[in-house]
Amino acid sequence: MQCFHCNFSVNSTQRALQTVTYLTHNSYSGGFRMRSVRKTVLLAILASVVLVLALLHSWPTRASTAVDVWQRPGPIDERHLEERLPEPDRRFGNIPFHVRDNVASLLARNGCVCEGDSGGVNLPFVQLLFPRVSAHPLHAAFQAPELQEMKRRREKEYRSFQERTQTPADLLLIAEANNPLQYPTQGVEVRPLRTIIIPGLALYSLPRDHYSINLTATLGTLNVAAEVDRVKIKGDGAMRMTLSSILLPNLNRQLQFVTYTNTLFHPSTADTVQFETEGHQASFSIKIRHGVTPKLYNTGSKGEYNVSALVTIATKTFLRYDKLQDLINSVRRYYPTVTIVIADDSETPQTISGPYIEHYIMPFGKGWFAGRNLAVSQVTTKYVLWVDDDFVFTANTKLEKLVDVLERTTLDLVGGAVREATGYTATYRQTISIESGEADGDCLHMRRGFHHAIQGFPNCVVTDGVINFFLARTEKVQQVGFDPRLARVAHLEFFIDGLGSLHVGSCDDVIVNHATKVRLPWVSQSESDKTYAKFRYPPASSDATHTKNGLLFFKNRFQCLTHN
Amino acid sequence: MQCFHCNFSVNSTQRALQTVTYLTHNSYSGGFRMRSVRKTVLLAILASVVLVLALLHSWPTRASTAVDVWQRPGPIDERHLEERLPEPDRRFGNIPFHVRDNVASLLARNGCVCEGDSGGVNLPFVQLLFPRVSAHPLHAAFQAPELQEMKRRREKEYRSFQERTQTPADLLLIAEANNPLQYPTQGVEVRPLRTIIIPGLALYSLPRDHYSINLTATLGTLNVAAEVDRVKIKGDGAMRMTLSSILLPNLNRQLQFVTYTNTLFHPSTADTVQFETEGHQASFSIKIRHGVTPKLYNTGSKGEYNVSALVTIATKTFLRYDKLQDLINSVRRYYPTVTIVIADDSETPQTISGPYIEHYIMPFGKGWFAGRNLAVSQVTTKYVLWVDDDFVFTANTKLEKLVDVLERTTLDLVGGAVREATGYTATYRQTISIESGEADGDCLHMRRGFHHAIQGFPNCVVTDGVINFFLARTEKVQQVGFDPRLARVAHLEFFIDGLGSLHVGSCDDVIVNHATKVRLPWVSQSESDKTYAKFRYPPASSDATHTKNGLLFFKNRFQCLTHN
Repeated sequence: MQCFHCNFSVNSTQRALQTVTYLTHNSYSGGFRMRSVRKTVLLAILASVVLVLALLHSWPTRASTAVDVWQRPGPIDERHLEERLPEPDRRFGNIPFHVRDNVASLLARNGCVCEGDSGGVNLPFVQLLFPRVSAHPLHAAFQAPELQEMKRRREKEYRSFQERTQTPADLLLIAEANNPLQYPTQGVEVRPLRTIIIPGLALYSLPRDHYSINLTATLGTLNVAAEVDRVKIKGDGAMRMTLSSILLPNLNRQLQFVTYTNTLFHPSTADTVQFETEGHQASFSIKIRHGVTPKLYNTGSKGEYNVSALVTIATKTFLRYDKLQDLINSVRRYYPTVTIVIADDSETPQTISGPYIEHYIMPFGKGWFAGRNLAVSQVTTKYVLWVDDDFVFTANTKLEKLVDVLERTTLDLVGGAVREATGYTATYRQTISIESGEADGDCLHMRRGFHHAIQGFPNCVVTDGVINFFLARTEKVQQVGFDPRLARVAHLEFFIDGLGSLHVGSCDDVIVNHATKVRLPWVSQSESDKTYAKFRYPPASSDATHTKNGLLFFKNRFQCLTHN
Repeated sequence: MQCFHCNFSVNSTQRALQTVTYLTHNSYSGGFRMRSVRKTVLLAILASVVLVLALLHSWPTRASTAVDVWQRPGPIDERHLEERLPEPDRRFGNIPFHVRDNVASLLARNGCVCEGDSGGVNLPFVQLLFPRVSAHPLHAAFQAPELQEMKRRREKEYRSFQERTQTPADLLLIAEANNPLQYPTQGVEVRPLRTIIIPGLALYSLPRDHYSINLTATLGTLNVAAEVDRVKIKGDGAMRMTLSSILLPNLNRQLQFVTYTNTLFHPSTADTVQFETEGHQASFSIKIRHGVTPKLYNTGSKGEYNVSALVTIATKTFLRYDKLQDLINSVRRYYPTVTIVIADDSETPQTISGPYIEHYIMPFGKGWFAGRNLAVSQVTTKYVLWVDDDFVFTANTKLEKLVDVLERTTLDLVGGAVREATGYTATYRQTISIESGEADGDCLHMRRGFHHAIQGFPNCVVTDGVINFFLARTEKVQQVGFDPRLARVAHLEFFIDGLGSLHVGSCDDVIVNHATKVRLPWVSQSESDKTYAKFRYPPASSDATHTKNGLLFFKNRFQCLTHN
């Protein structure tokens, strides 16, 4: 019973019709003793009344304006503010200046260039001490014939993405000098379809016979919450309102009562309001959004950190049940009741039993990041601890220390250290930055190291990527996610996806042991990983966009990756 | 080999030491024919040189300032801008005004009140036609003794959350009137640790002997990319810079070269810059953030919509393998190669086989939303279609229509319609809004209905929540997530968590059949769901915060839920 041409809610009409059906049915089966004509007439009247009530009730109370949510092809305003040195202003054409190279060179160029370090001494230990930066153009993930098509699709997807993510609140606005208007430049927000008072509006004009201002909006209407004597109001309740008076104090008092009501629904956007008086104007944004709803977690008992209530351990396993059991046994020695979530894509999954263990079976070889994403998707505690299935807990694996860092700082994730059998301990700290490219995509730069030490935590630093042993806020990890398109070995892709979302730290005093055969530190990790991956993970698909570099190229729109 | 007290990178030192070890080892085994004393001295010198080089190389190039990322207890600036009518300004104390009730009543009150509709005619069909709003105070999810503790914990978690999410870019700033300074009020952004030119700075002062401006920042330094003749620069490269000149055009030309460099790393924050000249000042924000990295998906062949390349069907099943098989068979009739992801928490899972089917086994009774979260976590296509395991596809289930909506609009999710055996078809459209509360939490309001029709799609509307049959952008659904704490039947909680993130639509011309026994439309859905849930889903935990209302209270910090 759909209603294609009606503009009242289907539910209401349905219920009305069903009511009539119900009553009709009941009247027949209930055996009313009436003459059939009168009965029919009565029912007809009742039916009409009910239908009219339904119609009146579900008549939309707000003019059901159609909203335009179409994506538009065409140029989109670029938001690049890292400009080159500004073109000479004609007014200043004659004024000489000298470029400061050390500063000008820090400014972004037009586009980024895919280069690493050139030359350098080619001695065996130099690469160890002074790791060179290598640059990888990412289009190389694709064969020549398909590259053109990939670029075209990527641009199309990117334009849609820009349309969905840019808002008027990102546009550059400049405040005019010597403007008699006073107005808010930041911080004005309204929830969708709600009303607020616009704060801070005033006019400080030179004395004149008559004072007048206009306010214009596009996603809502303007009005006044109170009427002030001797002020004329026009267009109240519309998208353009004019206030005028011969008395400036009265106009300013009136300006304190101006309201904005959002009328065109959008869950997250901004309206740019124009504020004008004779000879001057100003623009400011009113953000229209719901506000961030928190996702808080119960923390268990007060007092000491209750690790079992706060932390879930998550891991992915493939074929290594013996190592996995060693991991579980070692965890239980120190944390007998902490929940361990295991994602398993082995070909013939074995049973893993025990209290506080959750075992998830996946299709064979579904993949590494798919398994990681699965495991974290099941966590119900405030924090999740990621471990590889070949780690072993020791007395140095004090999770309370990592919990302490996240409880007392604004960090979202903190990595620990992994010790090999040789005693070599790694924190694998990486800084990650993005340099704007143009049509070819941005450049991604990864460097070993960190940004700052952390006050009050002498063994910890702030960085962008860490080793695969970390504690993190569950809601942040779930929000960033591990892209299941990465079937083979991947690691930093999670941190790349988390850029801007995750505030990452790394502490070297919480250590877990690594049970696997010693990996020679000077053999580049990617080579051993490639062999490992080839042996263990059949290609999930022939889609080149699902390889690490193909994904960086297509999904994240990078043209180049440099790292040391 | 950790280094607790050094401030250079562990990796560099490790490599240096390993190099020395390697060389020493090799020199011994390589059998150098030298007298042992000379050999020792030579090795000692070599070791020192290598160590010194390592030290020099890894000496931090930037003063490794410690950064303060601690959470601070104490009052946090409230961002409530939906103010009551402003207090009378002393300057305007005598100016009379009259409140406009119809507008003033739209403004947010201080806190929200938990009330539904009162009274109303109590006739059998009135509730059908005029559904009354009922209000549910959510603290009732908790027993009296634990409620106090829950409130305390919730406030503590909420304060941490506020610290992590608020930035200086949210604060209210008002532009001073008649300010000779010109400056940017919106749209200035820099990537972390990068440098930009600050656009739009100028001074339009009345003629005077000497012109001078100051710029002050707190998370970065100021400098100039070029030096202009006859302008004196002080504090360049510091957090406070002064520019002065006797020639105003020169000073304004210099202001076009002012740069800002972020020096204190934070992945997403803002610096509030003070811009001053004699007698006047202005503040503006420079957003410090990475920029949003896209997560784009390959769309398959060009031309027609390739549903198998674009869409993955996701569902959760429990005990109903016959219905599940009916679903799969019906899907295959129309979409033989589309991937179907099935999350299964049955007690004795059966094998579900077939091409393009991915079957995931979960711990028994892990739960409804856990299963939903699992299924969507595995999707690798651009869109995911959610279906319940007792749906049946028909010729009216044209997924291409839903794909068309998402391809051509900025919507993130679009629901379809579910037809019962009786022919009754539901779209279950819900609008959701939040009203700010104060210390007790916000009020959540849900109402049947929608906001607007959609231009160009006559059967579709914009709303906030829809029925359990929808197509959505995979990256958005994964980002919002289905909270695995909801073990029992839940539905709108996903849309509540998605408020502000998801732009939701609903079309009534794409219909899937519902195979389950007819649910009487006038029996309230929650009652049959409760029975269903009790029969099928054992309580996942005794944690009251994991019930629907307990979660709304604690996790989302609501005090009240009203709905019709």
